[in-house]
Amino acid sequence: MKTPIILDCDPGHDDAIALILAVAASNIDLMGVTTSAGNQMPAKTLNNAMRILTLLGQTEIPVAPGLKKPLLRKLETDVAMHGLTGLDGADLPEPDFPVYSGSAIDLLATKVKTSKDPVTIVVTGPCTNIAFFLSLHTELKYKIKEIVILGGGMGVGNKMPTTEFNMLEDPESAKIVIESGIKIVLFPLNVAFKAQLLDEDMKKMSKIKNKVSRAVVDLLNNYGIQFDQGTRPFKGIPIYDPCCISWLMNPSIFSGKECHVDIETKGEFTTGETIIDYYDLTKKNKNAFVLFDIERELFAQQIIDSLKSFSK
Amino acid sequence: MKTPIILDCDPGHDDAIALILAVAASNIDLMGVTTSAGNQMPAKTLNNAMRILTLLGQTEIPVAPGLKKPLLRKLETDVAMHGLTGLDGADLPEPDFPVYSGSAIDLLATKVKTSKDPVTIVVTGPCTNIAFFLSLHTELKYKIKEIVILGGGMGVGNKMPTTEFNMLEDPESAKIVIESGIKIVLFPLNVAFKAQLLDEDMKKMSKIKNKVSRAVVDLLNNYGIQFDQGTRPFKGIPIYDPCCISWLMNPSIFSGKECHVDIETKGEFTTGETIIDYYDLTKKNKNAFVLFDIERELFAQQIIDSLKSFSK
Amino acid sequence: MKTPIILDCDPGHDDAIALILAVAASNIDLMGVTTSAGNQMPAKTLNNAMRILTLLGQTEIPVAPGLKKPLLRKLETDVAMHGLTGLDGADLPEPDFPVYSGSAIDLLATKVKTSKDPVTIVVTGPCTNIAFFLSLHTELKYKIKEIVILGGGMGVGNKMPTTEFNMLEDPESAKIVIESGIKIVLFPLNVAFKAQLLDEDMKKMSKIKNKVSRAVVDLLNNYGIQFDQGTRPFKGIPIYDPCCISWLMNPSIFSGKECHVDIETKGEFTTGETIIDYYDLTKKNKNAFVLFDIERELFAQQIIDSLKSFSK
Amino acid sequence: MKTPIILDCDPGHDDAIALILAVAASNIDLMGVTTSAGNQMPAKTLNNAMRILTLLGQTEIPVAPGLKKPLLRKLETDVAMHGLTGLDGADLPEPDFPVYSGSAIDLLATKVKTSKDPVTIVVTGPCTNIAFFLSLHTELKYKIKEIVILGGGMGVGNKMPTTEFNMLEDPESAKIVIESGIKIVLFPLNVAFKAQLLDEDMKKMSKIKNKVSRAVVDLLNNYGIQFDQGTRPFKGIPIYDPCCISWLMNPSIFSGKECHVDIETKGEFTTGETIIDYYDLTKKNKNAFVLFDIERELFAQQIIDSLKSFSK
Ligand SMILES: [Ca+2]
Ligand SMILES: [Ca+2]
Ligand SMILES: [Ca+2]
Ligand SMILES: [Ca+2]
Repeated sequence: MKTPIILDCDPGHDDAIALILAVAASNIDLMGVTTSAGNQMPAKTLNNAMRILTLLGQTEIPVAPGLKKPLLRKLETDVAMHGLTGLDGADLPEPDFPVYSGSAIDLLATKVKTSKDPVTIVVTGPCTNIAFFLSLHTELKYKIKEIVILGGGMGVGNKMPTTEFNMLEDPESAKIVIESGIKIVLFPLNVAFKAQLLDEDMKKMSKIKNKVSRAVVDLLNNYGIQFDQGTRPFKGIPIYDPCCISWLMNPSIFSGKECHVDIETKGEFTTGETIIDYYDLTKKNKNAFVLFDIERELFAQQIIDSLKSFSK
Repeated sequence: MKTPIILDCDPGHDDAIALILAVAASNIDLMGVTTSAGNQMPAKTLNNAMRILTLLGQTEIPVAPGLKKPLLRKLETDVAMHGLTGLDGADLPEPDFPVYSGSAIDLLATKVKTSKDPVTIVVTGPCTNIAFFLSLHTELKYKIKEIVILGGGMGVGNKMPTTEFNMLEDPESAKIVIESGIKIVLFPLNVAFKAQLLDEDMKKMSKIKNKVSRAVVDLLNNYGIQFDQGTRPFKGIPIYDPCCISWLMNPSIFSGKECHVDIETKGEFTTGETIIDYYDLTKKNKNAFVLFDIERELFAQQIIDSLKSFSK
Repeated sequence: MKTPIILDCDPGHDDAIALILAVAASNIDLMGVTTSAGNQMPAKTLNNAMRILTLLGQTEIPVAPGLKKPLLRKLETDVAMHGLTGLDGADLPEPDFPVYSGSAIDLLATKVKTSKDPVTIVVTGPCTNIAFFLSLHTELKYKIKEIVILGGGMGVGNKMPTTEFNMLEDPESAKIVIESGIKIVLFPLNVAFKAQLLDEDMKKMSKIKNKVSRAVVDLLNNYGIQFDQGTRPFKGIPIYDPCCISWLMNPSIFSGKECHVDIETKGEFTTGETIIDYYDLTKKNKNAFVLFDIERELFAQQIIDSLKSFSK
Repeated sequence: MKTPIILDCDPGHDDAIALILAVAASNIDLMGVTTSAGNQMPAKTLNNAMRILTLLGQTEIPVAPGLKKPLLRKLETDVAMHGLTGLDGADLPEPDFPVYSGSAIDLLATKVKTSKDPVTIVVTGPCTNIAFFLSLHTELKYKIKEIVILGGGMGVGNKMPTTEFNMLEDPESAKIVIESGIKIVLFPLNVAFKAQLLDEDMKKMSKIKNKVSRAVVDLLNNYGIQFDQGTRPFKGIPIYDPCCISWLMNPSIFSGKECHVDIETKGEFTTGETIIDYYDLTKKNKNAFVLFDIERELFAQQIIDSLKSFSK
């Protein structure tokens, strides 16, 4: 049986690769895509998701636009990382199919309601759309299998010393989602930083030479520059968002631990921080399965194999 | 030349060992001891510091009582860790010398003012006394060489997932001290957790058999039980506070990095957290030298040697 | 021309009277009613709104259920004030018409979108529904004429010294609404406390003797007891929520001032407070028209006349 | 018997008049003056207090400098109100006596300790000095009769819509003082705004023609201009700080109520607000006697009479 998922994303280079993996994965049924304001303005992340699906020839997958800004805070896009388009570096086709007729919330509600099996929601941007969906449709919570989130960090951050972009962008929405009572699978920066593609992987991808692999290589070449310029040393290019899909494809590549997780929303320096109680100091309920480690080579191979699958 | 220091502590088992090291160290001139409310009620930490100095026969070192509680918050002692006396486990002599005639602030002011050389302040409890001292005696800041603090953690905590006892106890005072402009040397839990005494070290100490080593072994046997019962696995017994003195005795045992450090005072879950900007994401001034690593064997040997020095 | 309005309420005794006024008013077109969680659990406030409309024979007005709880905080109902049903004291008919098929957000969106003229939204409960509506339907903001809110206070409160129930219940939603850029008309407790019905008014109402007036008298007799028991002295029974409708019926009964208004969401004691800049100390934009005074006798007469209108 | 008081002030035009009243009052024994950072930099408020005492020929009253800045926040002086000197407008003599040899804390401790009777502390600036004094000298609390404070407001402010200068300047210190357990007498803006001198009073003062009255008239002429330019309408010139002394001279001029008072230190818009529970909604202990009304004419007459007393 395929895992039915809805991907809520803000493409974004790594979101784009997550989307490609989700389409390529033989055990995943990508029922819909919803887009959030985050890496870029909402009109751009919507367009980017549709451009990727157009590239993949998957124009029957519905794509719906989400909230225009975070729940309580201003939108702060990440132009430095993802460029003016949000997906700089590749020559992508313009969307050749229409936007879904309703909102992201409508698409989520319809798909979750009508799905035979409980649905997995994957969030690779700020949690805004999912917070609104859960608040508005409490009657559908029982139909959600789990929410897989890329975000947060335990003692590490990327925007600020202890905070990660997605969580910092909309901490109140993250809090609503984490405290929803639905099973959370969290990929913090601790594991995402390890999800690197090395030169050798880039070389393998370059040799595949189908239109999807070409776009991915172009995107990664553009994206990788930012990591070279950062102060944190990386051997390769860490690609965060694909971790979520990779885990759904093959959980054995990752290892983690059940933990209680809180989201800070009041701090002067720590708002957006995920407080991950690794050693169970608080004795609070373990509301999340948090991933900390990855078998990097298997992860890279999974991506390479996925790209190859578009060659036929 | 000996380094003139004042030790501001809340003994506390590890504070007691820090005090013993400071007396034993041939390159340290322990000019005075001030006590804070923290591990136990202020009357008890005062008495404990005096009992240790009585044990050591160092009754000419002035000991002065500090503030009765944290700057803005309630005092929360750590009875689970340090027992009803704050120094459970050893049979210590009662103080045989009088308390200093003034307050901790008076002793700090007098010693710093009259010292020929700039003074190093070592803080192994909450920062309350030092915050008051710096606020009241801005005219003496130039006479302080540096403030060496045991506290905080980068992504680790002991009381809560991301907060350490000393900082959590009085975060506002910590903020005042960290932002004072005086050079800060910070020993967070990241290094303190590594400052462990193993069974082999305990055995060596047990063989020394002078009254100081006997007291230390008794204290450690009592103190170590808490770590066995905690959820975080330790090979040996981590003794945090002695790190500060050990570093003054021989900085080459430790390694660290200049970083900007902020103290969170507003968070719902993170108040008391030290935000250590290891990768310079904020581009703020590097106001602290933060230690992350320790050569554990040399550290243990230093303690063993210090205890032996009391045998003659 | 009649003013098209949607009433978002949490009946509640005073909400019920506001609803009755809105139906009675010859210059108001009550296009729909949405209900919020506040004075009572959301299922009860929904049922109460429908019971009142059943009593009034207005079963063609759509009533839709809103969010189940405040945006970020727990629901705290006001049983002491409104009783177990939320509308204790009167013998009301059970609803004899079906609930609207969609949510409060759907009803708001449909009515605002299809209305020929811009719509006035009246909020007499927590702002939750309207915050969600505005966040989800930014494209409809231009069709909203103004948002008339019962809530807040300048230096006065009812739940806490400086905070009013509706605002305290969901301060984040109130903040979203107040900062939406839409014109706000705010009735704080300063004016609501003056909107009292005296014994003489109660006597006049008692003489009307139609089924609506009987229900209102019963409701007020029950509701009034709470004010007798409070510490704040009132001559009569203050009925807050009807102020909003009364003003729409005849603005000349009230007087007020354009002011900047902020909503506190971070305070230890002041969360939910409306900071009304009466003297323009902040020089911020005047985002609200705030009512401070009322001609009480005209207000009471308006209610009496409205009740009489149900006699035929 | 004379009431022994220590005046902690930040002169400041109204502080200066408070000081003059305290010297003139036959039932007050002004044991010492301590100065705070507030209306102007601490060196200036110290100098101003000494200039006023020099003018009064009261050079035996010890004057001691307090903390250089608020407990946790930056000093924000009020140059607009009090000018570059902090006491613009009058030609005052330079101090002709030395500053007290110790700090404000030392002076407070010495005077309170050695006083036969419990001492009244009057605070007409930020509460910084008193917060430090109480924290450092818990053993002297029993010797303090009461703390009379000019500060705060119930629903009114002068710097921000709901906050008053002294409280906004150092809310954490105010919190420490208010929560100290010592009896508090609070004069908020509600009464201070009513403590006005009218043209007719100014005329009477102008006719007195001694050096003190001349200085006061000059100070008031300068100070009054600010109120003409403000947005809040005043008939005359409100002089806040003298209320405290006036009440000590003759409490029957004022009326008030026992209330619980909290200080907000966390708010986004309300930090520094005094939450005065006038209607006992919180049922918390009544920790303050709060003054709300004043017999303005008697107050003005008291000042005029005090000025006349310097004619001999
Ligand atoms: Ca993303
Ligand atoms: Ca300690
Ligand atoms: Ca209501
Ligand atoms: Ca003053």
